Amino acid sequence: MPPRKSRATSFQVARLAGVSQPSVSRAFTPGASISKEKRDKILAAAKELNYVPNVFASSLSSARSNMVAVISGSLSNPFYSESMQVFIEQFQDAGRQVLAFSVEANRDCDEALMLAMRYPVDGIVVTSASMSSEVVRMSEGLGIPIVMYNRRVVGSNLANVRCDHEEGGARIGRFMHAAGARSFLIVRGDPQGSSSGDRERGFREAVERLGTRGIEDLAGGSSYSGARNAMIRYFGGPAPHFPDAIFAVNDIMAIACADVLREIHGLRIPEDIMLAGFDGIREGQRPAYGLTTVRQPIERMVRETLELLALDGGPIPNGDRKARLIPGDFIPGKTVPGLAAGT
Amino acid sequence: MPPRKSRATSFQVARLAGVSQPSVSRAFTPGASISKEKRDKILAAAKELNYVPNVFASSLSSARSNMVAVISGSLSNPFYSESMQVFIEQFQDAGRQVLAFSVEANRDCDEALMLAMRYPVDGIVVTSASMSSEVVRMSEGLGIPIVMYNRRVVGSNLANVRCDHEEGGARIGRFMHAAGARSFLIVRGDPQGSSSGDRERGFREAVERLGTRGIEDLAGGSSYSGARNAMIRYFGGPAPHFPDAIFAVNDIMAIACADVLREIHGLRIPEDIMLAGFDGIREGQRPAYGLTTVRQPIERMVRETLELLALDGGPIPNGDRKARLIPGDFIPGKTVPGLAAGT
Repeated sequence: MPPRKSRATSFQVARLAGVSQPSVSRAFTPGASISKEKRDKILAAAKELNYVPNVFASSLSSARSNMVAVISGSLSNPFYSESMQVFIEQFQDAGRQVLAFSVEANRDCDEALMLAMRYPVDGIVVTSASMSSEVVRMSEGLGIPIVMYNRRVVGSNLANVRCDHEEGGARIGRFMHAAGARSFLIVRGDPQGSSSGDRERGFREAVERLGTRGIEDLAGGSSYSGARNAMIRYFGGPAPHFPDAIFAVNDIMAIACADVLREIHGLRIPEDIMLAGFDGIREGQRPAYGLTTVRQPIERMVRETLELLALDGGPIPNGDRKARLIPGDFIPGKTVPGLAAGT
Repeated sequence: MPPRKSRATSFQVARLAGVSQPSVSRAFTPGASISKEKRDKILAAAKELNYVPNVFASSLSSARSNMVAVISGSLSNPFYSESMQVFIEQFQDAGRQVLAFSVEANRDCDEALMLAMRYPVDGIVVTSASMSSEVVRMSEGLGIPIVMYNRRVVGSNLANVRCDHEEGGARIGRFMHAAGARSFLIVRGDPQGSSSGDRERGFREAVERLGTRGIEDLAGGSSYSGARNAMIRYFGGPAPHFPDAIFAVNDIMAIACADVLREIHGLRIPEDIMLAGFDGIREGQRPAYGLTTVRQPIERMVRETLELLALDGGPIPNGDRKARLIPGDFIPGKTVPGLAAGT
């Protein structure tokens, strides 16, 4: 492999192409005004000299790298990998690049945040569970904006964008109750995650208000395998007693529930037992599952995250609303009977 | 938002903590030898001064940023999002960060490559279809190593890591033939993708050698919606004629085929029609599908990609084998009857 060579400068390219140095800059700036002919001449010279503009050289004056760190929860949860995809695509469209970090479930993200701050990032998005207030203070000291995505940190005033988990959970509860369910099982998620807790609380309060014969719950670990194993254990006795309805606080766990109920217990959904999830991941909407769920509007959530980062230095649109609570889209699906119009 | 402040230096931290400057460096180097007590004192001082080491300052001498650009094909294909996850996790474990780029299907990646080269990346991984030889020459001029992941570029000697697509396709073909299939439909993928073409060729040659009553094919666009729409059109007549077996060159298209065959035509798989895919994505292995497929060993492929990048400057393990052809794992699944032991 050849050694890393020193880069050609824009002045050398300008000289070879017979143009001014600012023309070279324009040729490499998306959308800048320059004739196609001049641009082609400059690109030919650049290729001959192996020239590409260096982001960090050109951003020295503006102190911007156009990199944004995205610290994501476990990407094996399709909600996070679908979100990461939208972050990469939307940020790229806005001229930003994602420097990607992954944090395992149930771990705090202090280490990833410390690592991210070693890079000259313009902002940090955090989608995983918890972080210490010291690390948040460090980012504030460095002037790096942080936005929480799909999380809130109780007692902090960090900017955050999240779906209305509580109302979404309540909506699922009302829908199941209207379809006749009176006994419930909640498959819980990450105990550190604010979202899981909010969904569970909304669901529980809604069905308790309407009247139930009982609500049980079990820990599903937020993952397919966690929920699958928990379900197998929970209904593992010789004559298991099934509730009327199961609410898994995310879709990937609801998919695991559907697989266990059908494959191991031969139950039909929704005829024998109702089921719902949360997130609206693509996999849950295939005909094989058709989950009743609440879709998180990922595109809008990412767009508002980008707004709150205020990377262009302007004011944040919509004033200082630093906490954006976005309603989820209820999807009736086919895992709860749709008898109940207008719930 | 506070303005971006100038960063504290390691010397200021050393003074406040009452230690030497090299100790400060060690405190921030994963795995470096330093006592817990000294490290805690340094971290406390660093927090007080809002100090974090700057990767680019500390890498000036080594000219390394520890960033690797990963230019990925469409992340809506779970194979690419699962690969991106493994890239992020394995590179992070090796002390590298992924700067992520996404390229839409059927687009070349020249623009993303040019963009990646504007950052001081230590290497570039390309998983999407095609790129021009000029752009490859530019990267060589800059001394930035490029490794193709799951692709080969005909006529180039670029380092590449890929699964043995041709043998995988042949294996599926032999398995279907042994199970009794004689008429076939191939659902093709990205016409620019070398992988899709290799899988199709391997399959076609194997079944032709064994004897068939005919092989048809249709363009599935590499995506769920592309394959779903193509299947609906293809079998849209009043009395559609179905082949014995369908080979979709990737799992996400095989899932679309299963959904159309079951939901629209009421067919049972494999009793009425056989089906196989390729990739081994998680979703295809759920009980709802249980696809017969060839799993690409993503963890091993990413590990060998990391080796070929030779980021530590040492020689590439296993000599100069710059093209790594890795056998896929055949998964019998349940969408082709498993009558045929030993095929």
